[in-house]
Amino acid sequence: MRVEIISIGDELLIGQTINTNASWMGEQLAQIGADIQFCTVVRDNIQEMLHAFDTAMNRVDVVLVTGGLGPTKDDITKKVLCDFFDTELVRNEDVLKHVESFFALRNRPMLDVNKLQADVPAISEVLYNEHGTAPGMWIEREGKVMVSMPGVPYEMKSIMSSSVLERLSSSFSLTSLYYKTIQTQGIGESYIANRMEDLEDEIEGNGMYLAYLPSPGSVRLRISSEKKKDKIDLIDDLTRRISERFEKYVFGYGTDTLQEVVGELLKKKGRTVSTVESCTGGAVAASLVSVAGSSLYYLGSIVSYSNDIKINLVDVEKNTIESHGVVSREVVEEMALNGREKMSTDYCVSLSGIAGPDGGSESKPIGTVWIAVAGPKRVLSKKFQFEQTRDRNIRRSVLTALNLLRCELMEINIEKS
Amino acid sequence: MRVEIISIGDELLIGQTINTNASWMGEQLAQIGADIQFCTVVRDNIQEMLHAFDTAMNRVDVVLVTGGLGPTKDDITKKVLCDFFDTELVRNEDVLKHVESFFALRNRPMLDVNKLQADVPAISEVLYNEHGTAPGMWIEREGKVMVSMPGVPYEMKSIMSSSVLERLSSSFSLTSLYYKTIQTQGIGESYIANRMEDLEDEIEGNGMYLAYLPSPGSVRLRISSEKKKDKIDLIDDLTRRISERFEKYVFGYGTDTLQEVVGELLKKKGRTVSTVESCTGGAVAASLVSVAGSSLYYLGSIVSYSNDIKINLVDVEKNTIESHGVVSREVVEEMALNGREKMSTDYCVSLSGIAGPDGGSESKPIGTVWIAVAGPKRVLSKKFQFEQTRDRNIRRSVLTALNLLRCELMEINIEKS
Repeated sequence: MRVEIISIGDELLIGQTINTNASWMGEQLAQIGADIQFCTVVRDNIQEMLHAFDTAMNRVDVVLVTGGLGPTKDDITKKVLCDFFDTELVRNEDVLKHVESFFALRNRPMLDVNKLQADVPAISEVLYNEHGTAPGMWIEREGKVMVSMPGVPYEMKSIMSSSVLERLSSSFSLTSLYYKTIQTQGIGESYIANRMEDLEDEIEGNGMYLAYLPSPGSVRLRISSEKKKDKIDLIDDLTRRISERFEKYVFGYGTDTLQEVVGELLKKKGRTVSTVESCTGGAVAASLVSVAGSSLYYLGSIVSYSNDIKINLVDVEKNTIESHGVVSREVVEEMALNGREKMSTDYCVSLSGIAGPDGGSESKPIGTVWIAVAGPKRVLSKKFQFEQTRDRNIRRSVLTALNLLRCELMEINIEKS
Repeated sequence: MRVEIISIGDELLIGQTINTNASWMGEQLAQIGADIQFCTVVRDNIQEMLHAFDTAMNRVDVVLVTGGLGPTKDDITKKVLCDFFDTELVRNEDVLKHVESFFALRNRPMLDVNKLQADVPAISEVLYNEHGTAPGMWIEREGKVMVSMPGVPYEMKSIMSSSVLERLSSSFSLTSLYYKTIQTQGIGESYIANRMEDLEDEIEGNGMYLAYLPSPGSVRLRISSEKKKDKIDLIDDLTRRISERFEKYVFGYGTDTLQEVVGELLKKKGRTVSTVESCTGGAVAASLVSVAGSSLYYLGSIVSYSNDIKINLVDVEKNTIESHGVVSREVVEEMALNGREKMSTDYCVSLSGIAGPDGGSESKPIGTVWIAVAGPKRVLSKKFQFEQTRDRNIRRSVLTALNLLRCELMEINIEKS
């Protein structure tokens, strides 16, 4: 099943919106074994959309279109679908009822323009949109399929999950691909590559494929091949060997996030955690809380951004700050130890650093970050030198702090290379 | 100047990486008046890449390629460029020196594989990469240009900013487009449209274009037209009128973020802020701190996720929680008032709500969030009913809290429609 994703909207081309829909769809489609060959972004322009539809319907089996179904005047996808398939809009009574109940349920007035959401191309089959008023539309022609969905991410996702993916799986024969993704934190891609040349050769020698996918503070490794018994076994075995070789850095697999992995560990061990943050401004806490059910192990935080709050709320000794500077081993250790006690948690993670763009000095340049983890047995603290930009420093600080906590929870010796 | 962006990497097609590069590039290119016609994503496959290069060089004037320049074996862009332009790789001594000093400066060992970064197609002109080891490459053929850049976002951005954008501006004649983007928070797109039908007609009647760009918790309006004096004046005037009509909701323009706008207001008024957060877990604080220079007005936060921490660190009365429930006007008001006092700030923003997926009840379903803002004159509190999903509830809570703080700082009566 060859697939093309067409994303409509000049806001995507001129960068006002990031195309997260295409990546989510790609991920889901890859999981059912679809062969995603192209992704094209076009503007809200009748001629360019018609051209993109035509090109796609000629070169692949399934075309998934998102965008242009909103209630406002700039949304033209339904008109273009009618032109392309030579059909017309008809009002669908089921959709109309859904739209009406959608507004009634939320105690919001229904506007005339919202009724237009119930008009769909006559030849299309309507796909129920649980979370919004614009229905999805499934259209078949000469054995090929075009599906049109709203561009609002959670509406598209709900339609894909409930109506599109399974139906595609059962309608087409799928090439099967097997892959494992290994998630690492705290090591660059060339260092990983350098330490696994033997495994790279083994992967290549067996006709399999290795990709390095770097993002700020983490690198994912993806090993893939055809879905055959011997290859699957070898990929699983390689995954295990890589994880052992890089145990300090490998925190998970697939779409695991560090905050989920840490959360699972805390739950499994019956431990609780708090944070005392300075340069990250609560971002470590927010990351932990982003996981559903985090109230089982996360209790709270103090963001001591100003020195007064470090002193008054966290009881860091004024003298420690004056003697060692606020970005120092001594200060983060006091923050972690006092936070652990004040919030009565088993672990407390603390950070103090220079996120930039101001505040750097010769001895403590921008990107200098001290992180401590206080636990039942010890307080561990470590100095890091990150980057020049504020958002990257904050992001890398969060990931590094979570990975240090993971290593402490798993009793991995982080001093070991 | 017609432009096509080609993003290379099957990680983009199968959704392991979101294509943020294409949107950033689109944004920058739109600002210099380029006509971004296509964005194509292709896999790391020699034949498919050659095909994409060929198609693009035939249909546009400038092709910007990102990805596939890393030091690992899966990176093949330079080989494909050599095939396409019928040339070969040569070692560039300047790049080699840069790569060597890059590692020396960071006290990291240089690996043999890193030296390959200095090999570039003989016909290319090298573009300096301040932040990494893979240089950009500028290639001209028959009046058209292809630029190849690394896929690592901040490396690509630095090459675009320092070497590509200005050179494109001076080499091509540009169609000029003028647009204004208005940022709103707290009102849905159909409600905005319903309350500005007259303005929509005026925009359309003057041959201009209006787009609604919704994202969770906010909607951007973009008015655009050709860059001509009378149109520019009208767009500026419409922007002003829309802002007045929706003053409670319009927080900024262009790429303004709420945290930046709130930060500017606090600075201008010489006021400070703190937060006491429950359901958002520090995300409001992290949002404020994401802005450079926020230490001028943001002092700190308490994330009182557990009731114990609400009682022990924030001094919320146990009795208040027992009588009214933890998600209530009374509790958020105590959180804001006590937080303001404890952290000695002019304002304190507090939140308590049910982010989900658990914890909802008939009277307080998932998405119920109370937000309070305590200031020098009063404490304002308001109840909101957001969504079903945790990440959206947190995101909307953060934006809504920041917008409430903005309205309080500007003394906008939020009860007015």
